[in-house]
Amino acid sequence: MLIVGEKLNSSIKRVAEAIEARDTAVIQDLARRQAEAGADYLDANAAIRVSQELDDLAWLIETIRAVTDRPLCIDSPNPAAIARGLELLRSSGHPGRPLINSITAEPERLQGILPLAGQYHCPVVALTSDEQGIPTTVEDRLRIAGRIVAEAEKYGVPREDLYFDPLVLPVSTDVRNAVLFMEALSAIKAEYPGVKTISGLSNVSYGLPKRKIINRAFLIMAMHAGMDAAILDPLDADLMGLLKAGEMLLGRDEFCMNYLMAYRSGMLGPTS
Amino acid sequence: MLIVGEKLNSSIKRVAEAIEARDTAVIQDLARRQAEAGADYLDANAAIRVSQELDDLAWLIETIRAVTDRPLCIDSPNPAAIARGLELLRSSGHPGRPLINSITAEPERLQGILPLAGQYHCPVVALTSDEQGIPTTVEDRLRIAGRIVAEAEKYGVPREDLYFDPLVLPVSTDVRNAVLFMEALSAIKAEYPGVKTISGLSNVSYGLPKRKIINRAFLIMAMHAGMDAAILDPLDADLMGLLKAGEMLLGRDEFCMNYLMAYRSGMLGPTS
Repeated sequence: MLIVGEKLNSSIKRVAEAIEARDTAVIQDLARRQAEAGADYLDANAAIRVSQELDDLAWLIETIRAVTDRPLCIDSPNPAAIARGLELLRSSGHPGRPLINSITAEPERLQGILPLAGQYHCPVVALTSDEQGIPTTVEDRLRIAGRIVAEAEKYGVPREDLYFDPLVLPVSTDVRNAVLFMEALSAIKAEYPGVKTISGLSNVSYGLPKRKIINRAFLIMAMHAGMDAAILDPLDADLMGLLKAGEMLLGRDEFCMNYLMAYRSGMLGPTS
Repeated sequence: MLIVGEKLNSSIKRVAEAIEARDTAVIQDLARRQAEAGADYLDANAAIRVSQELDDLAWLIETIRAVTDRPLCIDSPNPAAIARGLELLRSSGHPGRPLINSITAEPERLQGILPLAGQYHCPVVALTSDEQGIPTTVEDRLRIAGRIVAEAEKYGVPREDLYFDPLVLPVSTDVRNAVLFMEALSAIKAEYPGVKTISGLSNVSYGLPKRKIINRAFLIMAMHAGMDAAILDPLDADLMGLLKAGEMLLGRDEFCMNYLMAYRSGMLGPTS
């Protein structure tokens, strides 16, 4: 499974402060540690100060780039910021294809960002929401995914580069929300073969205590339901241990080599 | 999900010693604590000293019965021991229906134990193995389940009282083994509507380090695959926390009440 490290996000107070203060050490420490812990992508979000997002994002990307060759996930709702990030990574020759995070079916983001994915040949996270917000049914999520698949084709973005996020809502507001998410995930993969799926882990547990337990169970269920990627905290060793066990149980770890290597490097967390 | 507490098993050295020494305190402490932790059934196994199993089992059942009204899971490959346990529980008026653990498609166990399930109206764990041992394919497990379903009908044991264990083999010997288990579980439920499924958690991780991580991920995946019951250690608070989160994520916990009650009673384990 593809792991997107979530820590370099300006919605986290410490990260927002580090970006504002141009504190290189804080950012680079988080970048290095997430890469070492096994993140395939590092999310880079500087969207908190809207009026200065382009400068903040450029600084953030340069600062991360200086210490890791892990590809970045450019995280913004703003097409201009995405464009700036993509251009910066291309001109600097940073390895790998950036992941764009994210589009929705809202015209501004769809028409503003999807052409960039085509132009830079980048994979893109697609949230199944539109002008009306997050739909409450599987059918509506599927309908929105269909609109995005059709638009992506127009701009030459192949299905394999679409990472659909079916947008899980908290089980505290409706206990069926996680089941709905799993059903939407399976339905999108069945209806549009080739597309991929992704999710963050924390929305599902909003409003409940001991959220990490819920987030962990959610990750393993979503993996079993066929999820291809997750946006998560790779510094949570218990979570990463479960993830590696999950990959092995899904038969994706020949001779259990990755699990055993993670164990030998002390990366499976404190659980006995 | 139905939880069978696994701790009172004579394959555990401390329990075997307590049975031999007729140490009431050790047994009753494990019985009480498992019941308090949420076990629906308490497994009772005294099979280690084959020649004295009937006496040992009778003492074990009486000792557990004295401190809990949780129904028992009578665990033996020996039809005579099962019969003794069932009779003891009936004559003593212990609440609930005992769970018989277990039959296979081997003639001795099938013909020896299945009639008892019919006679005492008890649910029974059915392992999908036969004279040839544990099959390596989904098809062979399904074929064995079919034989058992047909025999159960003859003895008046309804499908709802059959808990099939598709017998997971360690992923250390073949990394596809957990996937095979999930496929067999789904296939059995699809082919014989009404039957239930069950499994222990520890076989899957045999031969690997940090087994608890693997067992936990396995539980959550099997729950998502539709497993109805598990034989596990209810005193493992982290495991029980994940299980309760899993039940909630599967939409079986209206208003998250069970999860919140478990939290308030301090039963969700140390994870934050």
